[in-house]
Amino acid sequence: MLLLVSPKDVNEAIEAIEGGADIIDVKNPVEGSLGANFPWVIKEIREVTPKNLLVSATIGDVPYKPGTAALAAMGAAISGADYIKVGLYGTKSYNQAVDLMKKVVKAVKDIDENKIVVAAGYADAYRVGAVEPLVIPKVARDSGCDVAMLDTAIKDGKTLFDHLDKETLREFVEETHRYGLKCALAGSIKKEHIPILKEIGCDIVGVRGAACTKGDRNEGRIERELVKELVELCRQ
Amino acid sequence: MLLLVSPKDVNEAIEAIEGGADIIDVKNPVEGSLGANFPWVIKEIREVTPKNLLVSATIGDVPYKPGTAALAAMGAAISGADYIKVGLYGTKSYNQAVDLMKKVVKAVKDIDENKIVVAAGYADAYRVGAVEPLVIPKVARDSGCDVAMLDTAIKDGKTLFDHLDKETLREFVEETHRYGLKCALAGSIKKEHIPILKEIGCDIVGVRGAACTKGDRNEGRIERELVKELVELCRQ
Amino acid sequence: MLLLVSPKDVNEAIEAIEGGADIIDVKNPVEGSLGANFPWVIKEIREVTPKNLLVSATIGDVPYKPGTAALAAMGAAISGADYIKVGLYGTKSYNQAVDLMKKVVKAVKDIDENKIVVAAGYADAYRVGAVEPLVIPKVARDSGCDVAMLDTAIKDGKTLFDHLDKETLREFVEETHRYGLKCALAGSIKKEHIPILKEIGCDIVGVRGAACTKGDRNEGRIERELVKELVELCRQ
Amino acid sequence: MLLLVSPKDVNEAIEAIEGGADIIDVKNPVEGSLGANFPWVIKEIREVTPKNLLVSATIGDVPYKPGTAALAAMGAAISGADYIKVGLYGTKSYNQAVDLMKKVVKAVKDIDENKIVVAAGYADAYRVGAVEPLVIPKVARDSGCDVAMLDTAIKDGKTLFDHLDKETLREFVEETHRYGLKCALAGSIKKEHIPILKEIGCDIVGVRGAACTKGDRNEGRIERELVKELVELCRQ
Amino acid sequence: MLLLVSPKDVNEAIEAIEGGADIIDVKNPVEGSLGANFPWVIKEIREVTPKNLLVSATIGDVPYKPGTAALAAMGAAISGADYIKVGLYGTKSYNQAVDLMKKVVKAVKDIDENKIVVAAGYADAYRVGAVEPLVIPKVARDSGCDVAMLDTAIKDGKTLFDHLDKETLREFVEETHRYGLKCALAGSIKKEHIPILKEIGCDIVGVRGAACTKGDRNEGRIERELVKELVELCRQ
Amino acid sequence: MLLLVSPKDVNEAIEAIEGGADIIDVKNPVEGSLGANFPWVIKEIREVTPKNLLVSATIGDVPYKPGTAALAAMGAAISGADYIKVGLYGTKSYNQAVDLMKKVVKAVKDIDENKIVVAAGYADAYRVGAVEPLVIPKVARDSGCDVAMLDTAIKDGKTLFDHLDKETLREFVEETHRYGLKCALAGSIKKEHIPILKEIGCDIVGVRGAACTKGDRNEGRIERELVKELVELCRQ
Repeated sequence: MLLLVSPKDVNEAIEAIEGGADIIDVKNPVEGSLGANFPWVIKEIREVTPKNLLVSATIGDVPYKPGTAALAAMGAAISGADYIKVGLYGTKSYNQAVDLMKKVVKAVKDIDENKIVVAAGYADAYRVGAVEPLVIPKVARDSGCDVAMLDTAIKDGKTLFDHLDKETLREFVEETHRYGLKCALAGSIKKEHIPILKEIGCDIVGVRGAACTKGDRNEGRIERELVKELVELCRQ
Repeated sequence: MLLLVSPKDVNEAIEAIEGGADIIDVKNPVEGSLGANFPWVIKEIREVTPKNLLVSATIGDVPYKPGTAALAAMGAAISGADYIKVGLYGTKSYNQAVDLMKKVVKAVKDIDENKIVVAAGYADAYRVGAVEPLVIPKVARDSGCDVAMLDTAIKDGKTLFDHLDKETLREFVEETHRYGLKCALAGSIKKEHIPILKEIGCDIVGVRGAACTKGDRNEGRIERELVKELVELCRQ
Repeated sequence: MLLLVSPKDVNEAIEAIEGGADIIDVKNPVEGSLGANFPWVIKEIREVTPKNLLVSATIGDVPYKPGTAALAAMGAAISGADYIKVGLYGTKSYNQAVDLMKKVVKAVKDIDENKIVVAAGYADAYRVGAVEPLVIPKVARDSGCDVAMLDTAIKDGKTLFDHLDKETLREFVEETHRYGLKCALAGSIKKEHIPILKEIGCDIVGVRGAACTKGDRNEGRIERELVKELVELCRQ
Repeated sequence: MLLLVSPKDVNEAIEAIEGGADIIDVKNPVEGSLGANFPWVIKEIREVTPKNLLVSATIGDVPYKPGTAALAAMGAAISGADYIKVGLYGTKSYNQAVDLMKKVVKAVKDIDENKIVVAAGYADAYRVGAVEPLVIPKVARDSGCDVAMLDTAIKDGKTLFDHLDKETLREFVEETHRYGLKCALAGSIKKEHIPILKEIGCDIVGVRGAACTKGDRNEGRIERELVKELVELCRQ
Repeated sequence: MLLLVSPKDVNEAIEAIEGGADIIDVKNPVEGSLGANFPWVIKEIREVTPKNLLVSATIGDVPYKPGTAALAAMGAAISGADYIKVGLYGTKSYNQAVDLMKKVVKAVKDIDENKIVVAAGYADAYRVGAVEPLVIPKVARDSGCDVAMLDTAIKDGKTLFDHLDKETLREFVEETHRYGLKCALAGSIKKEHIPILKEIGCDIVGVRGAACTKGDRNEGRIERELVKELVELCRQ
Repeated sequence: MLLLVSPKDVNEAIEAIEGGADIIDVKNPVEGSLGANFPWVIKEIREVTPKNLLVSATIGDVPYKPGTAALAAMGAAISGADYIKVGLYGTKSYNQAVDLMKKVVKAVKDIDENKIVVAAGYADAYRVGAVEPLVIPKVARDSGCDVAMLDTAIKDGKTLFDHLDKETLREFVEETHRYGLKCALAGSIKKEHIPILKEIGCDIVGVRGAACTKGDRNEGRIERELVKELVELCRQ
């Protein structure tokens, strides 16, 4: 299982890299759970990250505006992101989500066929009126994405597991694999969740708080020792 | 006064070019008044447009998400747009609008200092809760934009002049010029409005319906003869 | 494929019976797409319907109130309904929908194990904030229902096929069958849709307008000749 | 004055019975102030309650859906409730409330003429947009109910008396009596309110917190000693 | 029964006076059903109206702002209105309505004890979330008003009788009389409603459309002949 | 710079007068940031205030109802207020604000040309959907007001300076002066803000909390010593 870590600045990115993270994720939490960061921040983090590691960037908790989303995805790809994540926040149905993701996929793959596009849904979609998490694998499949992901929309301390139980998540992973796609799971994941995610077959786990001092995503800072522990749990 | 025309496809773009339009504007009306079109559409229109003419592209009626907006602006600039227009839809105050536009300006000018950034407000902002049109010149000034623009948010047949009278628009133009910026006005503009816009000193007028057969922005199509008439009115 | 017809009174019910409908469905359109009718109406229609035909009754486009829903389901079952349909309107997620349906199933099966419980989602769920239609098969499976159904929430002339295309519906049917359940589809179904529904393997099709004079669900009335035609299409 | 006590499970019901409560009330607070409980819970409490005591059950804080409400009322009656309470939550006017209650009355009285139907309004109706409490007596009269009741919609520690003063409540009681109906009052009633309710002529008082340890409706449990004290206050 | 007529300008006021109206009512329909007109309009109409006729003025469909309402009532009284009508639009309960009306009564009676204060509710209160019409008599009584009135909040062609039937209105009138107050009824009243209003004992009927050419409150104008006919119907 | 102090009763008014305040302001905080007080309160405070001092009264955080506002402004003026302040809360655009203020100005100046009318906007207008603060000077100019003012709409401890920085406020003051009008600023102003307001040229500063014991606008009371300190800061 690969470990994706979300630093908030270059110093934290270096800690994540030194700790052995597989994917360095650029977010801007001020703009939402999957808030987009600025082109210059993506570039800067891409520059400090070794070539063999992937940089992921999110383009936001997007409204149902495929044109804006496609332009933003292009901006992220040009800025150096290898993974382009899209938070399916304002799309209210499978159809809208597929429509938007198809345009994002085309924008990204026109630049580089090898870039990876991630359709990210929310485990707590019902709290924000977003599309149901259990249809994300089909959305990813039908729009040509590479990865189906879940995160939590509202960061109120509730974790992925507070909204979806292990058996439901297992079904999510298996359905994604059946479609030949990879699966990423995030959402205030704690150390003790990692073995469970491995057990159900998850490909990528996303963390921030668990890699921070005191487990605090806001007040704490990412430290390489904590990242190392998580990496080991993922590798076991 | 320059004439900006908004075609909806390449054929219409050619009509606008042949008719003598100064700026070819790429929009996607399905996504709103200033809806964004896709990177490949911007590129295609840039390719058919002569070098000496400018291509304008809008990045959407954007929410208050500076990160997403900056990435989308970068996408539009990379796709070939010379003018990058941003519809200040979800920004609820002068402060939010300045914050968002500053990030867009940085993203665009990092690519090419000569690209032009347009802060577009809505004459009928009160109908959608957007920032008051009369502060757009200050927003443009304080964020480093080149042009302050007004359009209408809701396309229900009401024109720019139904929401703001001539004297208010004149003050808008004069304040914009006082700050050393250019001014663009649009919003279901009809032929008879053009002399008024010239009289008050407007730099750029934006049209679509007035350049279409039967004056119908939806059912009609842009024709070069109609564009020519408008160009002449602008040049007189 | 079985034909379910929704009469609005006893006379129409008799026409549906004489026309050969397989299931006589009691609704109260004034209370919504899957609006509940009164106990005495269900009883009356059960009385005029031959023993070998099934009577279906809906308990409403229900809010997320499992207690109220379970009591209403019990009321419908006691009134004589063989099929108990529940419109999953106010449940905002898979979890809420499963919770509510489990209670309904228990209430109904406590009365008679052979009664059939139908979890009904909406093809246009995104228009009303209801749970995504593509998770209804899992909801039905995990709550112990017998049938997974889709209808349209808003009766504005748009049909099932305006919201979900044939391939998506086929996947819905196949997933439902994979779980060992039956599948019902409705939503302003027209005569020409019936062969398509048969082709994709649908078990039960629900109609009203198509069985009415002039195809008009509101102003027209169900006529046995029209029902016969539909039955023949289902049997072919 | 009769004492109605609302236990949350069978053990509490037994405490209420042993304490001398006149009416054992089955609610499901998770579903709202007058949330409905499940058929099997009503049955179970009916079974442990002596024949000479009445069991009351609420069918929910109902929306304006007379069909669903009538079916649910039937479910509650069949499950053994002697009193059927309906929370007039989603009915926005006298007319809507009368319409809904008429259907509930018919559904219940068709089963047993002696069952009692309670039209329950909310003293704090203005906080939730429900029908004004002062018209509940007319609603009860014009729909054929037996009892007009008031409770509070939002359980935030405010009592009945925080929303309606003693003189207004007295008028409520007197108007109800003038129509030949009984009157029930509830809403975080404390011990010291009971003599006031007796003084103004109230027929039934509903409590939960006041019968619980530490007066805490959530953390406390009903105890027979506390119920006895309340019974004595009601009998004096 | 007295006839209150609502002209929209001085010329119409003269027609109403010449036609024999008992009360000349000053409204400003642009600001709502009971929209307030300006001080200078009230003064002007007071000046053209004979001393023996009463002038009524409304202070608006008011929010729950007793201070603003009291100041506006004072403005209307000082401008010459004899009747001060208050549309209880934003008050959501009996308590709020009584609070606001008490302050209005004090403001008006401090100027002149003989001025008449009218508490006006809406027959279609449920459509706008205003206080239930059937509690208006108690509101008037408990705040010291002189008249309890009903009108319709939304002018969509529906009349008073579309929202409240004759028996309910009769009860409204009788309850008002029992409290020693006068009763006024309005709401797209047509000629044929007048005998019914007389029969149930109404004291004042308010009209506009019925006194206009073609019965059209918007496009028509008040004419003295039409007013005369209505006066005769009221006097019979 | 003049000091405006907002007492909540006559005793506090006397403290403000004794402390040397220039303007005694009558508000009713229960009805909002610029909530209106009752006619009798304005009169009472006018009576205890020396002739040479001005009394200010607000007519509320008003909706877009020019008729109601004009009547209320007349009520305040007749009650003795020299300054009439209007909170532009429900006006959503420059046009609506000018329309409303014109009617208020006419109502007030018809009574006494020397009365002063204040157009008050909100620094945090974006939080309540009110008109942008930066257009208030133009609103005041175009409607014939004497003073352009800013306050905060929501009293949550944030001050004027939390919503608008010093340079923006300076531009507000200068634009107001350019139009020949006076400028007033308020919004949880603290002692340390006063030199800044003086520096940018503000004419009138409004306070309450800063003149109260413990700086607490709610629990504290205005004391003459504190008022004196503020007066000195204003005079320096």
